[in-house]
Amino acid sequence: MEISKFVAPEIIFGRGSLSQIGESVVRLGVSKVFLVSDDDVISAGWVDTAVDYLRAAGLDTVIFSSLTTNPKDCEVTEGAAKYLASGCDGIVSVGGGSPTDVAKAIATIASNGGRLKDYEGINKISTPLPPMVIVPSTAGAGSEVSQFTIIVDTDRKLKMSIISRSLIPDIAIVDPELLKTKDAKLAAATGVDALTHGIESYVSLAATPLTDIHALKAISLISRNLRRAVAERSDMEANTNMAMASLTAGLAFSNAILGAAHAMTHQVDGLLDQHHGETNASILPHVMRFNLQACPERFRDIAVAMGEDVAGLELVAAAERSIEAVQRLIEDIGLAKGLSELGLKEEFIPLLSENATKDACLVTNPRYATREQIEQIYRNAM
Amino acid sequence: MEISKFVAPEIIFGRGSLSQIGESVVRLGVSKVFLVSDDDVISAGWVDTAVDYLRAAGLDTVIFSSLTTNPKDCEVTEGAAKYLASGCDGIVSVGGGSPTDVAKAIATIASNGGRLKDYEGINKISTPLPPMVIVPSTAGAGSEVSQFTIIVDTDRKLKMSIISRSLIPDIAIVDPELLKTKDAKLAAATGVDALTHGIESYVSLAATPLTDIHALKAISLISRNLRRAVAERSDMEANTNMAMASLTAGLAFSNAILGAAHAMTHQVDGLLDQHHGETNASILPHVMRFNLQACPERFRDIAVAMGEDVAGLELVAAAERSIEAVQRLIEDIGLAKGLSELGLKEEFIPLLSENATKDACLVTNPRYATREQIEQIYRNAM
Repeated sequence: MEISKFVAPEIIFGRGSLSQIGESVVRLGVSKVFLVSDDDVISAGWVDTAVDYLRAAGLDTVIFSSLTTNPKDCEVTEGAAKYLASGCDGIVSVGGGSPTDVAKAIATIASNGGRLKDYEGINKISTPLPPMVIVPSTAGAGSEVSQFTIIVDTDRKLKMSIISRSLIPDIAIVDPELLKTKDAKLAAATGVDALTHGIESYVSLAATPLTDIHALKAISLISRNLRRAVAERSDMEANTNMAMASLTAGLAFSNAILGAAHAMTHQVDGLLDQHHGETNASILPHVMRFNLQACPERFRDIAVAMGEDVAGLELVAAAERSIEAVQRLIEDIGLAKGLSELGLKEEFIPLLSENATKDACLVTNPRYATREQIEQIYRNAM
Repeated sequence: MEISKFVAPEIIFGRGSLSQIGESVVRLGVSKVFLVSDDDVISAGWVDTAVDYLRAAGLDTVIFSSLTTNPKDCEVTEGAAKYLASGCDGIVSVGGGSPTDVAKAIATIASNGGRLKDYEGINKISTPLPPMVIVPSTAGAGSEVSQFTIIVDTDRKLKMSIISRSLIPDIAIVDPELLKTKDAKLAAATGVDALTHGIESYVSLAATPLTDIHALKAISLISRNLRRAVAERSDMEANTNMAMASLTAGLAFSNAILGAAHAMTHQVDGLLDQHHGETNASILPHVMRFNLQACPERFRDIAVAMGEDVAGLELVAAAERSIEAVQRLIEDIGLAKGLSELGLKEEFIPLLSENATKDACLVTNPRYATREQIEQIYRNAM
């Protein structure tokens, strides 16, 4: 008996779709909105635009933007207290993966109480969350459609994975216009995050035909559009395709979960506070090499989705083309850096490896990995 | 500004997944279940199994099975009255497209009042429906995930298309085991229905990247599994793939809507009470030929998804391979019949054509069709 589940929020996609935010929030029965964002998105003017649309739909808004890259448990605690004091009855986020994950974590604590750590792992949330509408401003995290929120535990200095169906927002509004105001470096880093989601969910032990089609679509779109999106930030065709790639990768990993690359980056991100996409760029090719023998057919599919010509190649050679294609892409967009260049010191590797073995994302990695093997992958990625 | 929406229910898929019905219904807060089915499904024992699972979850069940193939408005009226008198607070269907569509229509009338005709067309339903869990017993209708219900108006002798986001069930439980007890003829007819959903949604004017991946997956699975599923009803690999095909085709057409083939079959079904899949088999190739010039690239994609070798062919020749592949498949599974063989008389064609021009499914057909052109397609399909 093999039973799989697939859950997705309602999705509104397209240039200008931010205009649907008022109607969407009203439809969920919300009367006062707690809007989570960050300073960059506010400076770019998107929060003003969202607030205007909400006001036109008769909604008052309270803004919360006290958060950092790789959002932290203490920021969530503060946000949840402000939400409860505000009289708001619904949560909106306009921003990248950080505001989105903070919005979802605030919703969790506001309705379930306790500390965020209590919900670490899979399906620990019992009380329903307030209505949530998520508007991503980057093409990478996929959190607008996922049952994940990833928050730094500042005591343990690692990222907690909280995974629960309750964390899927009610409505995701994906408007590629918001991508225009992000710089090339962020476009590159978030794009590699989406690529990692697509690849890890396609080789996941929990992959299904429904997650496969979304994962392959994401991988294909990213390999054809990420270079263009990084080189020319105003290329709206590339931005729109990257927004769709991030969305489809999100649907894939939300339902198939991830693998060793994310289990390992979560530890580095908690320690160094680097952008999660940059850490992924350092680690992903090495995890692919480790995993390849477990499912070479799947890696051959990834090579084909990335446009590699594998005709006439034997299976393993064809599969290896996927790693080469990923490495070329990472080099072309300027992210080919070792972990040491990102600031990681050798002495931390044993602790990071120990913590990685406990990360919920490791369970679905296609090849079983010991603590020693994870240490070796970290060293290869230095 | 081009904005698209994509909505899907929670999906539980896999052999043995019927066992999830009790937990699913409880999770929606239902305490007493109104279960819609039909005599064939009851005879096969699936309703008893479902009732046992519901009882184990502490739920009482009232069964309603007074319905026919091509379900009728009067059956819905009767069902809605019984639902309201029963003290039930949630609706489950275990069966093919007919029980599913009746369950959705009963939910509509029970919560919104009035007559079914009041909701014909797009987005006419305003009051939320009771919780709904749908378990399909055929691989074809896709209604378990769609925002459609199609019911015969017995006065006008045509099928009404009622399309609304409210009609998407809360949970779809797709258990391929249920397919085993259906005969070869029904497997063939329902399979062609799913194929028509995949093809019409892929060439629809409302197609999006998200509907495209589901439509192509469905077309590919059907071309590789329908012959096997018809030839050997106990082939569970073929049945499982057909269940996935029906599901993905459903996700595609629910969000991209359909086209002229469905606009035309709805009229024939209302008049003749033939199986909808058989009518589709008669009409689909002729509608494809009419539509081909509007989007030959899309028809070439369909040919490729069906496994046709189009290398070296010019565009239109490659596109035409899709029609040949569909015709071969329909012949191989024994459904190559003209409409006259199904009992349609020439004299009805003008009226059917007039009614088809008013069907909501015609709006998204890739080529504009006049009443005269629809008449000609009906004549070609005789």
